[in-house]
Amino acid sequence: MTTSPIEFARDNQTRFLSELKNLLRIPSISTLPENRAHVRHCAQVLASELKRIGMEHISLVETDGHPLVIADWLHAPGKPTCLCYGHYDVQPPDPLEEWISPPFEPTERDGNLYARGAVDDKGQMYMHLKAFESLMRANKARLPLNVRVILEGEEEVGGEGIAKFVREHPEKLKADFALISDTEMFAPGLPTLCVGLRGMIYTEIEARGAATDLHSGMYGGAAPNPLIALCQIIARLKDPEGRITIPGIYEDVVPPSVEELAAWKSLPFSAEEFQRNEVGATELTGEPEFSVLERLWSRPTLEVHGMPGGFTGAGAKTVIPARATAKVSMRLVPNMDAARVFEKFSAYISSICPAGIKVNVRLIHSADPMVIRTGNPYIQAATGAMREVFGRETVFVRSGGSIPIVGDFEHNLHIPSVMMGFGLPDDNLHAPNEKFKIANFHNGIEAIIRFFEGVGAMSAPAPRP
Amino acid sequence: MTTSPIEFARDNQTRFLSELKNLLRIPSISTLPENRAHVRHCAQVLASELKRIGMEHISLVETDGHPLVIADWLHAPGKPTCLCYGHYDVQPPDPLEEWISPPFEPTERDGNLYARGAVDDKGQMYMHLKAFESLMRANKARLPLNVRVILEGEEEVGGEGIAKFVREHPEKLKADFALISDTEMFAPGLPTLCVGLRGMIYTEIEARGAATDLHSGMYGGAAPNPLIALCQIIARLKDPEGRITIPGIYEDVVPPSVEELAAWKSLPFSAEEFQRNEVGATELTGEPEFSVLERLWSRPTLEVHGMPGGFTGAGAKTVIPARATAKVSMRLVPNMDAARVFEKFSAYISSICPAGIKVNVRLIHSADPMVIRTGNPYIQAATGAMREVFGRETVFVRSGGSIPIVGDFEHNLHIPSVMMGFGLPDDNLHAPNEKFKIANFHNGIEAIIRFFEGVGAMSAPAPRP
Repeated sequence: MTTSPIEFARDNQTRFLSELKNLLRIPSISTLPENRAHVRHCAQVLASELKRIGMEHISLVETDGHPLVIADWLHAPGKPTCLCYGHYDVQPPDPLEEWISPPFEPTERDGNLYARGAVDDKGQMYMHLKAFESLMRANKARLPLNVRVILEGEEEVGGEGIAKFVREHPEKLKADFALISDTEMFAPGLPTLCVGLRGMIYTEIEARGAATDLHSGMYGGAAPNPLIALCQIIARLKDPEGRITIPGIYEDVVPPSVEELAAWKSLPFSAEEFQRNEVGATELTGEPEFSVLERLWSRPTLEVHGMPGGFTGAGAKTVIPARATAKVSMRLVPNMDAARVFEKFSAYISSICPAGIKVNVRLIHSADPMVIRTGNPYIQAATGAMREVFGRETVFVRSGGSIPIVGDFEHNLHIPSVMMGFGLPDDNLHAPNEKFKIANFHNGIEAIIRFFEGVGAMSAPAPRP
Repeated sequence: MTTSPIEFARDNQTRFLSELKNLLRIPSISTLPENRAHVRHCAQVLASELKRIGMEHISLVETDGHPLVIADWLHAPGKPTCLCYGHYDVQPPDPLEEWISPPFEPTERDGNLYARGAVDDKGQMYMHLKAFESLMRANKARLPLNVRVILEGEEEVGGEGIAKFVREHPEKLKADFALISDTEMFAPGLPTLCVGLRGMIYTEIEARGAATDLHSGMYGGAAPNPLIALCQIIARLKDPEGRITIPGIYEDVVPPSVEELAAWKSLPFSAEEFQRNEVGATELTGEPEFSVLERLWSRPTLEVHGMPGGFTGAGAKTVIPARATAKVSMRLVPNMDAARVFEKFSAYISSICPAGIKVNVRLIHSADPMVIRTGNPYIQAATGAMREVFGRETVFVRSGGSIPIVGDFEHNLHIPSVMMGFGLPDDNLHAPNEKFKIANFHNGIEAIIRFFEGVGAMSAPAPRP
């Protein structure tokens, strides 16, 4: 009696979840230098697992930052090749005190698995590996299509290493399409493909005033204050309703098509529920002349993430700091160019720098925005697979987030990406109490198995000239 | 052969300095809960030293925070009684990396002693003790006047404990005047008495937006950002030239007299040198219609000291924080009332709070501004003592800083304060590389000895009815 891949996946659900917990225990926080060894350890664990399930040519590729993990299985001649991407690094867990269970001690509650990285992206990346394993075990160690795997450890810090590798070694990643599971379903049970991403620039604005920290009694009223200067600058980057006031910033923005806007209007979305249940603020903000989904998906925005400088401990210290910084990012939408936006951003900030202050604007990382055309056969295969698992038609949405690798794949490998994600809107990405719905983990594995089977029923496209 | 007090002080300069270094090695940072034991240890060391030099009734008085050290010597009937005040707590040393030698390892360089607390206020407070010791050793264990000593460990965090003690036990502090050495000389070698202080309110503005930290990609453009809100609020508290824009904030301000302004104009002060050598910024800021000394001494100001919240580590984290705070203080000038100012401050902030944000303004501590009348005999005795040591007439200045205890002494004990300080303008108060000029430490001890001798030649004033 043979077992089907789906049956194998169902029989092994407990083990799959337990393995994922082991992966989530590794604090692979890519932005913290002190966690460097943990990030590498995580890469090694993944390399071992890829070997165990039967992938080939496994290697850790060194970068200037954290290593890439690559592998392949290319024994399905005449079949399409899928490039499977994921990232094994995670965001810092702070503020730690707001976690109900510790961020690196995966904990099940109410059908969810809570841990930093549960959904972004360890849990979703791991679905690919478990789909491979299920297909291999049920099919005499064979996959129905060719597969290349590339996993990075720097997604949360800009992904310089993978971008360089994709640029310099496109031949090692030759494929017909990419599969990325790092997005979410629009609503529970509603299969979703993401076909648009915002780009971004992440910057640090440094303001310097006096040569040294000064006593605010002795010098207050005459010495420039870099924190006040940063506040004055930031207050001039957006109007009170959220429109960005940097000259010319909207001039390249291409609005979504009439059809796309109509599709968004038909999505099960309530701005009131979003405000109350997801955001939890007294009201939403942002450009009032656009719908909430437009503000999130097709409008640029600008956010401040932190303002290090001066005294930030408990209590009082009467210092005028010599130096302060602000971490400021912008999200970009189709047809905006990250480099051009950074130019306008930094030129405007220099032009409004208050008296007595020297300002320096540094680009930490950037990504161009993306739109994926929905006509290609891999998108069709994905919707078919998800229809079988979820019993519903797939909706096409955009994401307000940025996945720079999608642009890298398009520009360097000339392949489209299928962004098939199984997160949920309340998964607390980048926040305390990040979670992944356990049923979505298992359903996601099944959807990916069926997707690979569907693509395996197709022929490889004719080689490009 | 008898030794005069001045000779005793000169013979013991090396030991006095070495003892001061021991005191400076204790990291008595009052604002940090983890340094609590060090603060208490510092109080105990001072109590032992007061006992050793011959003071009486030494005790540690417990407060809700750090202990007071009190002592007295009251065996000069018919002579005035001096209440000697100092504080043994210090500011936090951060940013640590900017110290040339470690903040709690006192180090001599170029005739200066570098350490946190060297001048503010351990070094200056210790001059009083060494003046007592010199007078006692040279005068058969007697002082020429009556003395009470009160040392606090909470000056840098608002001085709640001493304020309560002065309010509740004025009889234990009965004196004719107070001596405070916690100010500076206007220029090297220029004897200076401080006769005016700015008051202050130190506040924390808390802004809350979403219920939890949010991903700036998923929510940016629709979710309120508390850091941007704080920037927008702060940018509206001052105009670009430094005028405070809180309605009615200037209405109680009483300008200095014509004579005082004329005296300030004759001080050896160059705004250009102040800007270049003390501040080290490209230009000074603040109300252009007032001179720099007026901006510092007789005009209120508003400063931001730190903005905790969001992500302040190295690298990038794309968070919209649920909550952020700003530490904001105002300095107040004569006739402004701290409580009334805080009311206007918090009402205005509430009135300009951006949409979607809840704001909460908390008063951490406050002090009313002070002006001391220069006609009293203790001020005259002080100028005489300093003339003998420095060979020059004393200048009367104000300070931009706040010493709340001066107001507490006036309101509760009905006594004037003599603010005879020996710091210098470049002593890096509250900043890295705080220092005390070693010659000023020794000259200060001599000036205080002569001052006590001068007051000892006077009779106690008739008791108040």
